[in-house]
Amino acid sequence: MSARWVYYFGDGEADGNQNLKDLLGGKGANLAELTLMGVPVPPGFTISTDACRHYMEQGDVPPELPSEVQRNIARLEESTGKGFGASEGQPLLLSVRSGAKLSMPGMMDTVLNLGLNDRTAQALARESDDERFVWDSYRRFVQMYGDVVLGVDHHAFEAALSELRDREGVKQDTELSADGLKGLVRTFLDLVEDATGSPFPSDPEEQLWGAINAVFDSWNGDRAMAYRRHHRIPDDLGTAVNVQTMVYGNMGADSGSGVAFTRDPSTGEKVFYGEFLLNAQGEDVVAGTRDPLPITEMERLLPGPYAELLEVQDRIERHYREMQDVEFTVERGRLYMLQTRAGKRTAAAAVRIAVEMVDEGLISPETAVTRVDPEQVEQLLHPGLDPAVEPDQLAVGLPASPGAAAGRVVFDPDDAVRLAEEGEPVVLVRQETSPDDFSGMAVSQGILTSRGGMTSHAAVVARGMGKPCVAGAREIDIHGRDGYFEAQGRRIKEGEWITLDGASGRVLLGRVPTVEPELSEQFRRLMEWADGFRRLRVRTNADTPQDAAKAREFGAEGIGLCRTEHMFFGAERILAIREMILASDAESRRTALGKLLPMQQSDFEGIFRAMDGYPVTIRLLDPPLHEFLPHGDEEMEEMAQAMGRPLLQVKVAVERHREANPMLGHRGVRLGTTVPEITEMQARAILQAAVKVAEEGVSVLPEIMIPLVAVPEEFQRQDQLIRAVAELVFNERGRRVDYLVGTMIELPRAALVADRIAETAEFFSFGTNDLTQTAFGISRDDSGSFLPLYIEQGLLPEDPFRVLDQEGVGQLVEMGTQRGRGARQDLKVGICGEHGGDPSSVTFCHHLGLDYVSCSPFRVPVARLAAAIAALYEADTEAQEEQRLQTVG
Amino acid sequence: MSARWVYYFGDGEADGNQNLKDLLGGKGANLAELTLMGVPVPPGFTISTDACRHYMEQGDVPPELPSEVQRNIARLEESTGKGFGASEGQPLLLSVRSGAKLSMPGMMDTVLNLGLNDRTAQALARESDDERFVWDSYRRFVQMYGDVVLGVDHHAFEAALSELRDREGVKQDTELSADGLKGLVRTFLDLVEDATGSPFPSDPEEQLWGAINAVFDSWNGDRAMAYRRHHRIPDDLGTAVNVQTMVYGNMGADSGSGVAFTRDPSTGEKVFYGEFLLNAQGEDVVAGTRDPLPITEMERLLPGPYAELLEVQDRIERHYREMQDVEFTVERGRLYMLQTRAGKRTAAAAVRIAVEMVDEGLISPETAVTRVDPEQVEQLLHPGLDPAVEPDQLAVGLPASPGAAAGRVVFDPDDAVRLAEEGEPVVLVRQETSPDDFSGMAVSQGILTSRGGMTSHAAVVARGMGKPCVAGAREIDIHGRDGYFEAQGRRIKEGEWITLDGASGRVLLGRVPTVEPELSEQFRRLMEWADGFRRLRVRTNADTPQDAAKAREFGAEGIGLCRTEHMFFGAERILAIREMILASDAESRRTALGKLLPMQQSDFEGIFRAMDGYPVTIRLLDPPLHEFLPHGDEEMEEMAQAMGRPLLQVKVAVERHREANPMLGHRGVRLGTTVPEITEMQARAILQAAVKVAEEGVSVLPEIMIPLVAVPEEFQRQDQLIRAVAELVFNERGRRVDYLVGTMIELPRAALVADRIAETAEFFSFGTNDLTQTAFGISRDDSGSFLPLYIEQGLLPEDPFRVLDQEGVGQLVEMGTQRGRGARQDLKVGICGEHGGDPSSVTFCHHLGLDYVSCSPFRVPVARLAAAIAALYEADTEAQEEQRLQTVG
Repeated sequence: MSARWVYYFGDGEADGNQNLKDLLGGKGANLAELTLMGVPVPPGFTISTDACRHYMEQGDVPPELPSEVQRNIARLEESTGKGFGASEGQPLLLSVRSGAKLSMPGMMDTVLNLGLNDRTAQALARESDDERFVWDSYRRFVQMYGDVVLGVDHHAFEAALSELRDREGVKQDTELSADGLKGLVRTFLDLVEDATGSPFPSDPEEQLWGAINAVFDSWNGDRAMAYRRHHRIPDDLGTAVNVQTMVYGNMGADSGSGVAFTRDPSTGEKVFYGEFLLNAQGEDVVAGTRDPLPITEMERLLPGPYAELLEVQDRIERHYREMQDVEFTVERGRLYMLQTRAGKRTAAAAVRIAVEMVDEGLISPETAVTRVDPEQVEQLLHPGLDPAVEPDQLAVGLPASPGAAAGRVVFDPDDAVRLAEEGEPVVLVRQETSPDDFSGMAVSQGILTSRGGMTSHAAVVARGMGKPCVAGAREIDIHGRDGYFEAQGRRIKEGEWITLDGASGRVLLGRVPTVEPELSEQFRRLMEWADGFRRLRVRTNADTPQDAAKAREFGAEGIGLCRTEHMFFGAERILAIREMILASDAESRRTALGKLLPMQQSDFEGIFRAMDGYPVTIRLLDPPLHEFLPHGDEEMEEMAQAMGRPLLQVKVAVERHREANPMLGHRGVRLGTTVPEITEMQARAILQAAVKVAEEGVSVLPEIMIPLVAVPEEFQRQDQLIRAVAELVFNERGRRVDYLVGTMIELPRAALVADRIAETAEFFSFGTNDLTQTAFGISRDDSGSFLPLYIEQGLLPEDPFRVLDQEGVGQLVEMGTQRGRGARQDLKVGICGEHGGDPSSVTFCHHLGLDYVSCSPFRVPVARLAAAIAALYEADTEAQEEQRLQTVG
Repeated sequence: MSARWVYYFGDGEADGNQNLKDLLGGKGANLAELTLMGVPVPPGFTISTDACRHYMEQGDVPPELPSEVQRNIARLEESTGKGFGASEGQPLLLSVRSGAKLSMPGMMDTVLNLGLNDRTAQALARESDDERFVWDSYRRFVQMYGDVVLGVDHHAFEAALSELRDREGVKQDTELSADGLKGLVRTFLDLVEDATGSPFPSDPEEQLWGAINAVFDSWNGDRAMAYRRHHRIPDDLGTAVNVQTMVYGNMGADSGSGVAFTRDPSTGEKVFYGEFLLNAQGEDVVAGTRDPLPITEMERLLPGPYAELLEVQDRIERHYREMQDVEFTVERGRLYMLQTRAGKRTAAAAVRIAVEMVDEGLISPETAVTRVDPEQVEQLLHPGLDPAVEPDQLAVGLPASPGAAAGRVVFDPDDAVRLAEEGEPVVLVRQETSPDDFSGMAVSQGILTSRGGMTSHAAVVARGMGKPCVAGAREIDIHGRDGYFEAQGRRIKEGEWITLDGASGRVLLGRVPTVEPELSEQFRRLMEWADGFRRLRVRTNADTPQDAAKAREFGAEGIGLCRTEHMFFGAERILAIREMILASDAESRRTALGKLLPMQQSDFEGIFRAMDGYPVTIRLLDPPLHEFLPHGDEEMEEMAQAMGRPLLQVKVAVERHREANPMLGHRGVRLGTTVPEITEMQARAILQAAVKVAEEGVSVLPEIMIPLVAVPEEFQRQDQLIRAVAELVFNERGRRVDYLVGTMIELPRAALVADRIAETAEFFSFGTNDLTQTAFGISRDDSGSFLPLYIEQGLLPEDPFRVLDQEGVGQLVEMGTQRGRGARQDLKVGICGEHGGDPSSVTFCHHLGLDYVSCSPFRVPVARLAAAIAALYEADTEAQEEQRLQTVG
């Protein structure tokens, strides 16, 4: 039997079904399925993606295709009693649409009313008894066909249309006269002939082949190709072509069109929800030129079709076991379904629908979990802007940390602290932030920066704190010393109210009310299911007992990254660390660090108590020491005075610690190597805290983590030092606690020599932020000047600081994991970069067999859900492929 | 037959020979060989490294060892007619020395006179008739044995010795009386008993086993272990123990000791060369307490032994076919050879000896080539300080670029240019240099910086120019604005003369005369042989026609890296590039760049002409644009004025281009991607220049190189652009030239996705400087504060910016090469980092199968020689292993 290129559907019979999406595209497969279900669908046929592939490879359609199309047209004629190109009786008019497996911008969209020419138009006019309808349909056809098939500049058509409106003195196309439209058809036909040098094709068959080829050609159009490259969609998927009998909702008071959802897409409530227009075509509902009515109005206006629609939509939903978005038309009292597909929905609706469908027995808990997009879940946890208020937008920056907050503008972190103490909500506005600003950030409602990207200091810290942040809002121009910033020519003074929407990146003038989130019972149940399915553990990145407690509420199973540097920035503490920096020998350094010891110890005690029963990974001091030194002349003088030292000494120290590339400088384990007293003090603080809380009955599992290791020997040295301190502490206190010593793998070299590092290290935590920076050779702080362009132009599919670059950085994670486990079978491996909370990165970590991911508290539910979905899809590699492609769409 | 643990040598017979270095160590194998040659050697035996391994594994010597040692002692007694521990007749005294395959600091050195106790001392006194000799030998034995075997603090012995000198009122140990020494023996014996709690072992056999075990134990001493770890020497090599009959050069006027070389080690001339002391032991010659005589004096003083020595040394050299360093003793008119080994020599001597030995028919040209250390060769090319002058040293920095030069101190590059134009030799003194300083550096005799490391900007540029540079001289304190620098409390003013010795890092006050190098005919012949053996091509890094010509003289076969950024710094040029930076649209950028086009083109023409017939790899603009902008307020005002722009605009531009980590910022291909006009201009300049010189008959092979590629797509984009420009140029000029487009692999991600990059790229050049920076996460500029400590403490075996880190970065080079060649079989692969001129890195590149290395002009001969040696050793993997270990020693 020869290959089949064309699949018919109509009158309850179909050659295809919903499982043939590869062959028929999503639209074609669903039309076949609906037909098979007995749902009224205008009959038609689908030319398969095989034919498209043949066309791409051979440069022409398969030789059998014309006759197959002809046979199917005949079948349509038979089914409808109409004739394709018939100048007698009813002419058969067709729609032609592309339909790939995945919807894809840049593909040819739709040609309606195909089959019209001067003769069929006359026949239609006779049959429909509605001249205006006929000429309007005809001019629409010529316009669409001219534009998308023949490539005539669409402005030409619009100009002629506008001229006609002027001439007839009307504002809407719907008010144009039949005669006017008839003349317009003529004008359009001439326009096409002028532009193409050939007359508009009047032969319906020629029209049809033109449209089919145009669909195939559009598969390799620039925009579609760029989209596929960007989303890594294979070029050989191809598109199908759907050819379908036209039906008309604009044939009088017994006709209409609408779009509807089987459940409320914003709340998820199980109610039929949608919009409807009497005497209108589908495009009129979408275009918004007339105000559509609520779908319930249809009950009154078209009671019969409405009853049928209610029954049909319910049947479709039960059939697909998924909330559906349907399009329909009523032609002279008769209902036709034109499309069905899974409906888009809010996060809240997704959760409610999934859980209720389980209760209704439609789907399993496994399926319910896969029905919620992890990326959306975070929306549920943060306050949002009150949608009732019309905002006054000043600028749009990067949506760096979600949530909404309002506060008074402050430019200086100290002012932020002062005002916050007075009970004023503040928003800290800075060019960019540094660890110095931590205390000011901690008291602010939100943070706004004019520089920096999604992973700038401000963004990372704000996400960690669960505070809204808009970063890199380049439209605003900050004059902090003069007490104002400018945006859109407006000057916003210190103390004025602004509101940030961290989810969209919008900066709004004034105090826009926000609404607090409420976690639903359904959400709780869904997450409980998810936890039952996942294999990956989910920890959190948290530096304070408050963050730790918050993350625990969100389901964190330990801390994967507790940064200790923020603990050094209190007024008293920074003085001690500065003393250490100025000290000239180990003993004076120890004395200075000794002052920090009790404070650090008490920090750790709080965190251990909050994480009772769970492991806590503490990273030793990481940033270069110059971050603890002042920058300006004034601040240097202050420091000299506060410490009773000559100004020159301070200046020399600042100068000595200045670095050309601090990211690649004297930081991480390099500090512990050159100044082992820091490691000594921190190890002691951690272990003394552990012993103390263990005495209180807390179950404490400290994991001490050495950052920025590149060389196995530097890790070994630190490991020895920590173990020596541990023995001292345990002997002094007369009590031991279990602990691990491990390292971050955040430099390419560490991944390459992971086997040797794992000989000593008991755990690895991939620091994918720095690993991405060094593998790409891109500083996050400086990437704003080129990275956005890279993503825009499709040179990179995603921001690699947000979504783990599996092609490159992922190789290092895989290599590090395999080599590390090769040397130490029970090596605990996790990830603690920003990527720990990104769903596709979590999926990647699951497949690599990592033990856990760690992310900021508000991303914990995202990671839990993503980990569950990864585990559910794992069994079925095809489903996995689906998932990959779905995350694309 | 059971395993043998002990190897005898003496009286012309030996169980071992020179090929058993693994088993007998270097010293033991050579003693056996000399004995077999019939050279007079005091008889003895060697306990093998197998015994040492047994000792390390089992914690005890092999059970058969004691009886084997006993048998060999008996053989020694028979041979010498002396008795071990004999209180009648002549007592047999022994030396015990460690002897591993490689000489290794930290191993037990020597115990002499073993076998003495109160009774054997009496017997020796009777036999030698020299009481003083006996008690001096005895106290030396107790002192050495107490120190190295029993671990008694050597200060205790020295204190007692010093007390005796005071009591006898003498200054030298040689003046002490026999009675005094006899008393000292008693004091030493008591000292040992007090310190160890046991009497000093008087049984010679117990003494011997104590010494043997001490040698074995010293193999695992801290210093020896650290040394092995540092040099990656396997721990299981083990050491041998050499036990040998004592002979004495201090037995009167017919006795003596000496050390000698078979050829002059500083010139290589074929003359017997050495030093000699009458009536003295070997250690006296070395200690320098008496002035040794030239070896020729021995002819007069000990004519018989001298004649024998002359004959023996000649025989030894012919036997080993290598210049030897020998030690000998004459005891009562009888010559004994105590050691022979290959002699250390200067670079000039190495070349002369190797070539003359070929002429003498001793060795092949292949062997001659392997006899010269490539690292030494560079010494021959640079001027050196006149050794006759006593220098006044101000400071020592890093020996960043070899050669010696004197000049007047200048702090400002513009002053350097001005003074140089007036004919004054100048030395530019800066904290660190930047591309801004290029013109000033170019006219200076040498460069001195107080910051930065071996691969700082100053160091790299100076090496490229073949100018001496001392970098990171932290002892000097620069006050450039006040016109002086300080060192050692002395103030050196602008205009004063200083001299730099780039080979040692010394900074000297005043104008020390230098001597120009003269390349010998032997050098020329040696390099010609080397070129015949090597497979790797050697190119040079050169940015000017002058450098290119110089490198060609040194044997460069093309340019592997021509940086274009230096070409942008002339007064006129920088104005144009600044105009481009300030321009707001592509057209104005093109206009500004258009001014640079003719200048760039003429630069390239000069370089192409200088490299007629060889390929020239030109790297497109690499540094971030802010390097072309001024920094200080004053300079910004100047720029604004010169360009007729408002100061604010300049300030905004400077601010906008400021970067937190410029090394990881907006540079390399990221410039060409965001500002394609730069690529357009540079491609045009290169190809127009190529067409122009091709018309003149020059054979031109341009290779256009895109820097800092991380993503295949960014390379593809640039490649398309360059090829489009090329077609335009070829059409305009009516002539085509062949050219390649390739990329640097200098980011870890590029190595990881090298297969995809090679789909488009025609060549790879590993930029191992940046690859090392990103793989390690270490900024060269900032590494000074920790990297030296890492190397000092053995955390890293070498500075990875000088010697390629094969363990880590090497994996990326290998991966990039294999994956690249996997995708494109004929991919041309080279390396153009600093490592291109480092011998061990060149060897690594040879083994990876790279096509070429590229290095600074003065390193070209180094690389040629290293490449030849790598090829010669390749065939023989054992020889290869030797080579690896030799580079360690």
